[in-house]
Amino acid sequence: MANVQVAIMMGSKSDLPVMEETTKVLKEFAVEYEIKVLSAHRTPKETSAYAEGLASRGIKSVICGAGASAALAGVVAAHTNLPVIGIPIDSTALNGMDALLSTVQMPPGVPVATVAVGKAGAVNAALLALRILALHDKALEEKLQKFKDDQKKKILDIKLE
Amino acid sequence: MANVQVAIMMGSKSDLPVMEETTKVLKEFAVEYEIKVLSAHRTPKETSAYAEGLASRGIKSVICGAGASAALAGVVAAHTNLPVIGIPIDSTALNGMDALLSTVQMPPGVPVATVAVGKAGAVNAALLALRILALHDKALEEKLQKFKDDQKKKILDIKLE
Amino acid sequence: MANVQVAIMMGSKSDLPVMEETTKVLKEFAVEYEIKVLSAHRTPKETSAYAEGLASRGIKSVICGAGASAALAGVVAAHTNLPVIGIPIDSTALNGMDALLSTVQMPPGVPVATVAVGKAGAVNAALLALRILALHDKALEEKLQKFKDDQKKKILDIKLE
Amino acid sequence: MANVQVAIMMGSKSDLPVMEETTKVLKEFAVEYEIKVLSAHRTPKETSAYAEGLASRGIKSVICGAGASAALAGVVAAHTNLPVIGIPIDSTALNGMDALLSTVQMPPGVPVATVAVGKAGAVNAALLALRILALHDKALEEKLQKFKDDQKKKILDIKLE
Amino acid sequence: MANVQVAIMMGSKSDLPVMEETTKVLKEFAVEYEIKVLSAHRTPKETSAYAEGLASRGIKSVICGAGASAALAGVVAAHTNLPVIGIPIDSTALNGMDALLSTVQMPPGVPVATVAVGKAGAVNAALLALRILALHDKALEEKLQKFKDDQKKKILDIKLE
Amino acid sequence: MANVQVAIMMGSKSDLPVMEETTKVLKEFAVEYEIKVLSAHRTPKETSAYAEGLASRGIKSVICGAGASAALAGVVAAHTNLPVIGIPIDSTALNGMDALLSTVQMPPGVPVATVAVGKAGAVNAALLALRILALHDKALEEKLQKFKDDQKKKILDIKLE
Amino acid sequence: MANVQVAIMMGSKSDLPVMEETTKVLKEFAVEYEIKVLSAHRTPKETSAYAEGLASRGIKSVICGAGASAALAGVVAAHTNLPVIGIPIDSTALNGMDALLSTVQMPPGVPVATVAVGKAGAVNAALLALRILALHDKALEEKLQKFKDDQKKKILDIKLE
Amino acid sequence: MANVQVAIMMGSKSDLPVMEETTKVLKEFAVEYEIKVLSAHRTPKETSAYAEGLASRGIKSVICGAGASAALAGVVAAHTNLPVIGIPIDSTALNGMDALLSTVQMPPGVPVATVAVGKAGAVNAALLALRILALHDKALEEKLQKFKDDQKKKILDIKLE
Repeated sequence: MANVQVAIMMGSKSDLPVMEETTKVLKEFAVEYEIKVLSAHRTPKETSAYAEGLASRGIKSVICGAGASAALAGVVAAHTNLPVIGIPIDSTALNGMDALLSTVQMPPGVPVATVAVGKAGAVNAALLALRILALHDKALEEKLQKFKDDQKKKILDIKLE
Repeated sequence: MANVQVAIMMGSKSDLPVMEETTKVLKEFAVEYEIKVLSAHRTPKETSAYAEGLASRGIKSVICGAGASAALAGVVAAHTNLPVIGIPIDSTALNGMDALLSTVQMPPGVPVATVAVGKAGAVNAALLALRILALHDKALEEKLQKFKDDQKKKILDIKLE
Repeated sequence: MANVQVAIMMGSKSDLPVMEETTKVLKEFAVEYEIKVLSAHRTPKETSAYAEGLASRGIKSVICGAGASAALAGVVAAHTNLPVIGIPIDSTALNGMDALLSTVQMPPGVPVATVAVGKAGAVNAALLALRILALHDKALEEKLQKFKDDQKKKILDIKLE
Repeated sequence: MANVQVAIMMGSKSDLPVMEETTKVLKEFAVEYEIKVLSAHRTPKETSAYAEGLASRGIKSVICGAGASAALAGVVAAHTNLPVIGIPIDSTALNGMDALLSTVQMPPGVPVATVAVGKAGAVNAALLALRILALHDKALEEKLQKFKDDQKKKILDIKLE
Repeated sequence: MANVQVAIMMGSKSDLPVMEETTKVLKEFAVEYEIKVLSAHRTPKETSAYAEGLASRGIKSVICGAGASAALAGVVAAHTNLPVIGIPIDSTALNGMDALLSTVQMPPGVPVATVAVGKAGAVNAALLALRILALHDKALEEKLQKFKDDQKKKILDIKLE
Repeated sequence: MANVQVAIMMGSKSDLPVMEETTKVLKEFAVEYEIKVLSAHRTPKETSAYAEGLASRGIKSVICGAGASAALAGVVAAHTNLPVIGIPIDSTALNGMDALLSTVQMPPGVPVATVAVGKAGAVNAALLALRILALHDKALEEKLQKFKDDQKKKILDIKLE
Repeated sequence: MANVQVAIMMGSKSDLPVMEETTKVLKEFAVEYEIKVLSAHRTPKETSAYAEGLASRGIKSVICGAGASAALAGVVAAHTNLPVIGIPIDSTALNGMDALLSTVQMPPGVPVATVAVGKAGAVNAALLALRILALHDKALEEKLQKFKDDQKKKILDIKLE
Repeated sequence: MANVQVAIMMGSKSDLPVMEETTKVLKEFAVEYEIKVLSAHRTPKETSAYAEGLASRGIKSVICGAGASAALAGVVAAHTNLPVIGIPIDSTALNGMDALLSTVQMPPGVPVATVAVGKAGAVNAALLALRILALHDKALEEKLQKFKDDQKKKILDIKLE
């Protein structure tokens, strides 16, 4: 992990199947990441300390997935100036609406870049981190364009009937 | 402030008109409190430190009011073993539904005693703290019963027409 | 049941799988409880009488689980001055939103400490009762701290990959 | 009040402007009613006692208006076998959704006839009570038909431009 | 069908499993009913004609179950002066919220007595009709009281552990 | 009204300010319309009869605005084979969500073309009717294109600062 | 495909099971259609170009199904003056509410005729397109009437018990 | 505008009061921006063309505010590989829930970094763009830290009573 560019955090191990959509995309783009379970509520000090240390280690963005009262992304954003991306996870009876509102409705001053609830959001969290990295990495920008072109091609190749 | 029993926190000074419903009740019951603006997102370290110090100062419960992605009560509950009461405040376009879900949908392990959105909740937060104190304060329990009797009397005295 | 400290009520026997999350925690902390099915709507008198008798038996808090139009916790709070904790249970097509709003939106004067919908809430209801008991029970407070430390350790011990 | 046929209850005096839509209709139909403020949470015993006494006094239906966690209609239905009509009142930040779900989502066994949130519901609560009375009152049934005809005429008489 | 007292209508044959909760209760109380599939949208004329004919046949109330944009109860209420009871049925992706709001939010002038979404509502629709019939049927009123007593007994007989 | 092409209906005269957004657009395009207050619930027969007569008079589409349990568009669609456009109107405490779900969630077999809640929807209802008419009216299609071009120009002409 | 009258688009191949409800109806009415997967977000240029070319090919309406942030119908409506019908598809944790609001809440100027979420909407989208075509196709109008009559007959033929 | 780093777009001029919260922050940080009204639905081609040209002009992120069916951010994200930030604007009866779901629920492949509804979101959109720029601008990172410190100080300086 010589060159970790993205940190991935999740509030509970049970969020892993969603977060693996994030890691799958980062692997596909050969971007190094590290991944941890850390909770805003159950490991608050470790979460703060970890968030505070990210920038100085050269990490460029943080992706946080959490369900229910999803405080993780907001708390991380309070302890770093890196861009923080929040994935609301559908893990309660309320279908992810709790996690969505907890993640996105941040008060002015502490931004969280929120993506869609669940796996679609987890894919896009990775792509958003990649877009940020690609601002200063021409090769990555080209891969993103190729990814887009492939996506397009896949759709255009679909034959119905 | 020789004998503060209840700590009141709010995420923003604009929450004060709601929180004054809490202080009004505590004054009526002659229970000492202290009140502070501290934010889970904008003053995270001060919030944690304050929460951690409460129990050893003899404080018996904490009431936290916050709007939007209302992380305050949850973060305080992560840093103390006192009972934490959360008041969701209606301060965004979403009518307090964001604050309600953020406050109440805590993950297992870190409880927040959530009351109603806004001023009704602020009154009840005080009464809940008083019920907790009254478990070991017979005089206070009698005042609570008198409050209940007065409430009842007020309703029964209403004459329509 | 020499020393029951917590009373647990549920509106219907079908709520039991949720409420067992509460009893599991109380057993783990060796706190004695009693548990009953009593309904605000189907056994209103027995519910009131039971609620009224709790305080004089030395019980320190009441935990009420109910689904749909979840009136139980509010009705119990109307008949006792003990702290009442309400668990909204997801038992209808509306995903627990009905139980949540019925439990939490209490009018000023009659507080209910509401926790999350379903099993997460049931765990936290027990922990909230324990936090209340621990205010006057140093050993219990230490157990709560140990529980928190264990929770933290469990998260920090997770190895991904 | 020699011949009261309908009892009207409301949870708080602030509900009166809504409930006056109910009384207006009953007056128009010259049906006698009585009206009271009684709360499921603040005057639970008086509410139960009042509900239990209604049938033996010859009253034929009960209309209950309440906001927030609107337990009134359900509690009344638990204490009488009369038809109980519930009006959810919009009195909190949540736009009446809390009162609607609390009123309508009754568990099996204890029916509440729920009408629309607020003033439209208050008009219809009266009309529903009248429909019930009209089952055994031919003159009233004719008045209801005339009311319907007048409503229709009022609409058909509208000239736009 | 010599003495049909309750008419039951549903918007689609797929609503039958819910509506059978209604018929089960009516059978238990030995009250005669008739049951039909008729749609506000697909058989509008037959629906109107049927609704208009009910009162003169001695029927005392109508129970209408429908899902989605549940117009049936409202349309029936427009064509009769009998009490109309509406059961919102959860038959779309929106979990019955569509049927609930369509059924309950009737404009002033045309009342629908709305009960809970789905099977709980279907039970209560029957009980509501029975309460209306019992206003002039002492024996039925006694059966309702016995039903209530049995319900209570069933709950009080539950032994946990 | 020699050549009425569009019929406009609304459930209540209070819906007129919204519906005038529809008439404004039709006037701008010089398309003749007629406009009526007719209610699915209060004038059911007149509504059906009116809907049934539209096609034979050469009318090409019907626009129906209604609030609350907005049954109008669906009932009209049940009585004509013309395209029916429904405008949900925000006229209750529930912010138009009731009217939206009632209008759009039609069962299979009876289509309603639903547009946005309120005035934006009223503008678009007119434009949708015009698009339908323009399928066989080249001049109208050109006016629609010009309207689009004007809209575009208006946006492009905005100077900020 | 000599005489394609309806274009059907969907945002993702996974929407096909819903959209086949549309094609089934069109086949039943022997109306020719073409069907494509094209995405507002993943193939924006192809989507625009396709939408722009539809009118000149004699196509009379476009049906667009999409889930999540369902931009497809709106984007198509921006590139054609044909009537555009939008089917919100339930493909996320939020039960189709996201797709419904994205599809129906179009700003003034760009109308989308929105139908119900999911398969019911897909059937009605076809019927709405047929109603538009039938304005100038007497035979089709008769088939629509027959379809309605058959629907009615199917309901009236149902025998319960 | 020698060195524009952030592009700001809004769907309608009426969104300006919200978007000025964004420009205020950028001015405070002395970061150059350009601001435009461009609509996904009313100026689709200009919107696409503008989005496609941004990267080559050295712009580093795009902030898009839109209400109702808020397609703007998603459409822009489809035409650029820059990070796109979406601000849902509360401009309809539905309190911004429509704009929130339309903005955040993007399908996998096309990420939008969504912030809170309305002015809080507009402030945070600017701060998020600044965090992205600060990854390669040490002076800006220091200003962000100072902004945070000032925020904290402002809260800690509040004296209640």
